[in-house]
Amino acid sequence: MKTEGPRAGTQAARAPQTATLAEIAREAGVSAPTVSKVLNGRADVAPSTRARVEELLRTHGYRRRRAEATRSPLIDVVFHELESAWAMEVIRGVETVAREVGLSVVLSESAGRLTPGRTWADQVAARRPHGVVLVLSGLDASQRALLTSRSIPFVVMDPAGDPGDDVPSVGATNWQGGLAATRHLIELGHERIGAISGPSRMMCSRARVDGYRAALETAGLPVDPALIRTGDFHHEAGHRLGLDLLGRSDRPTAVFAGNDLQALGLYEAARELGLRVPEDLSVVGFDDLPVARWVGPPLTTVRQPLMEMAEAATRLVLDLGREEPASSATRVELATSLVERSSTAPPRR
Amino acid sequence: MKTEGPRAGTQAARAPQTATLAEIAREAGVSAPTVSKVLNGRADVAPSTRARVEELLRTHGYRRRRAEATRSPLIDVVFHELESAWAMEVIRGVETVAREVGLSVVLSESAGRLTPGRTWADQVAARRPHGVVLVLSGLDASQRALLTSRSIPFVVMDPAGDPGDDVPSVGATNWQGGLAATRHLIELGHERIGAISGPSRMMCSRARVDGYRAALETAGLPVDPALIRTGDFHHEAGHRLGLDLLGRSDRPTAVFAGNDLQALGLYEAARELGLRVPEDLSVVGFDDLPVARWVGPPLTTVRQPLMEMAEAATRLVLDLGREEPASSATRVELATSLVERSSTAPPRR
Repeated sequence: MKTEGPRAGTQAARAPQTATLAEIAREAGVSAPTVSKVLNGRADVAPSTRARVEELLRTHGYRRRRAEATRSPLIDVVFHELESAWAMEVIRGVETVAREVGLSVVLSESAGRLTPGRTWADQVAARRPHGVVLVLSGLDASQRALLTSRSIPFVVMDPAGDPGDDVPSVGATNWQGGLAATRHLIELGHERIGAISGPSRMMCSRARVDGYRAALETAGLPVDPALIRTGDFHHEAGHRLGLDLLGRSDRPTAVFAGNDLQALGLYEAARELGLRVPEDLSVVGFDDLPVARWVGPPLTTVRQPLMEMAEAATRLVLDLGREEPASSATRVELATSLVERSSTAPPRR
Repeated sequence: MKTEGPRAGTQAARAPQTATLAEIAREAGVSAPTVSKVLNGRADVAPSTRARVEELLRTHGYRRRRAEATRSPLIDVVFHELESAWAMEVIRGVETVAREVGLSVVLSESAGRLTPGRTWADQVAARRPHGVVLVLSGLDASQRALLTSRSIPFVVMDPAGDPGDDVPSVGATNWQGGLAATRHLIELGHERIGAISGPSRMMCSRARVDGYRAALETAGLPVDPALIRTGDFHHEAGHRLGLDLLGRSDRPTAVFAGNDLQALGLYEAARELGLRVPEDLSVVGFDDLPVARWVGPPLTTVRQPLMEMAEAATRLVLDLGREEPASSATRVELATSLVERSSTAPPRR
C-alpha cells in the first residue's frame, strides 16, 4: 500500500543532501548547536523548538553525513511481541552477529502494536545504534524520517505487512512452505485437508495459506472455505479453531497449521476429542521450533531458518550502515523446507 | 594518608570515599580529565594509562558520586546462555519493568562461561546503564570493582554459584520445590523415585535435589544414589539420563526432573522404551514453562515464577541505583508451587 507522503519523504532522503545543518538552523531561527542537540536526542531543547527542527529536518530530507554520526556500539532489535520461543531464536541470531563485531543488543517490544511508539524512536535517535532490526514490526513515515535523518539504517525481518519496495527486508519462502506442507499431505492420500492460518494482516500468513490453496488446486482437489480458519499465532487459537474444525461431522483428516504453537493447540484439541495423531489426524506445523522435536508425537513441520534469518537481517543492516545509501532496495528470502517426523500418516479408510 | 593498601575490594568500596578523582589522577601521573575519560569508557586513552588508572580506582575503592554518574536510559541483562524458553520469561519480566520507567533493555550472553568477558564490563562502563541484572551468571572481583567504581548497581537472579552475602540477589525456593515435587510422588504411593538433576555447580540444582532427599528421608524411604543422575539443563540430558534410569531392571516408577526441558527429554526416553506416562512412569518437572501445559500428557511441575523473579530483580536494581549504597545485602526468594497436571499417577502394582 503506497501513499504519496511517505514516498516523497523517502525519495528526498535518498536524493543528494538538500540542506546543511546551518541552513536548517537559520530557517528554524536557532543556532547550529541547537540543531545538533536535536539530532543527538539531547533533552535540553524546548519541545516547541525541537518539533520545529524535526519538521524542517523531515521536509528537507536531511540526512546526517556518515562522519558526523558517531555511533554507540549497539544494535537495536524491536519485536512485535516477545511471547514465544520464536522470539528467542531471533534474539540468538542477532546476538551471534552482534557479538562477532563487538556490539551489544538493545531489545524493545512494540507491545502488540505494529509500529513502535514515538518515545521509542526518540530513544533510538538518542542512543545512536549501528542499526535497527524490526521483527514483524514496521515503522510509520515519521519514524522512518527520524532514523533516516540520523543515518541509522533499518531492516525489517519477516514483514507482517507490506514493508514497501524501498525497505530492506529478510523473509522466508512462506508460500513455498505452505505448498510443500500441503503437497506432503496430498501425497499421503489426504483429500480433506484443513488449514489454521495466522492473522490475515500478516503477509506471511497469507502467503502460507495461498501455498496451501495452490497445492490443492494443482492436485485437482476442491478448496473448501469452511475448512480454513484464521486466528492469532498462539497455542490458544490452535486449540479453539482446532475444536471447531475437528468437531465437524465432515471433519478433515489432516490440518496444516500456521505455526508450531497452533499445531500444539491442535494436538490438545485432538486429545480432548479422543482423536489420535497421526492415526486419526495428520498435523503439519510451521517454524520448526525446538519444541517440535520434543512433543509426542514429534511434529512434522516446515522449517523456517529463524536464527539464520535474524543473522542475515543483522548483517544486512550493518552493511547498510557501512556503505553509502544503497540505491536499490534489498529483499532477501531464505528457503523453507519440510521436516517429516511422526505427526503425519496416510488417512484411515 | 587515606590509602590503606589493598583491603578487600568490596569492603573498601562500601566504606566512605577514600580518594577523589584528583587524587587518583595525581597518583597515576595523569590529568583529572584523563581519569574521567577512563571512568566514561572513552577509547582515546592509552591502554597502559588506562590499566594504571583502573588499578588505582580499584585499590582506593573509588566510587563515583551519584551526581557525577550521568546515566543512559538503559538497563543491562546478562544471560549465561540464551537457549531456552526460560530465558524468554526472564526477558519479558525485565522488559515489563524497564518499559514502565522508560528504559531500554540491553541483552548480553556470557556464552556459556559463568562470568561475562572483560570486554563486556568495559562496554557496560562506557554505556552507563541504570543497572545490571545477571541471570545465572556471576561477576569476578575486577568486574565487580569496575561496576562499583562507576556506581552501576547489579543484582544476580537465581544464582548459579554462591553469589556472596554482599551481592543482592533474587531466587526461588528451590529446596521447597524439590520437597513438594517428591512428596507429591510419595503421596501417590511411589517408593522407588529417581531424580535427574541440573549441573551441580549451580546452587539451584543442589537445592532441588536436597529437597528431594529430604522428602524421601522424612518419609522413611531409602535414598538410592544409583537413581540420581546429573546433567545440564537441556532436553538432550533428560533424554540420555532418562534412558539410563529407565533401562535399569529395577527402574524407578517415578522421576523428579531438574527442569521442564529435562522432563520432556525423559518423555522421549519413555516413548522409545515403550513406557507410558503416567501409567508406567510418573514425571514431575520444574519451572512451569508455557510448553508444560501443551505437551501430552500435560506435565505436572513445580512452578517457578520466572517473570515475577525477573521483575523483582529489575525493581531491586533500580532501587539500589536510587538510594545511597545499602549497608545490608538483599536476598529475595519467591515461592515455588506444585502444579498438578496429568503426568503423575499412582504406581501400577
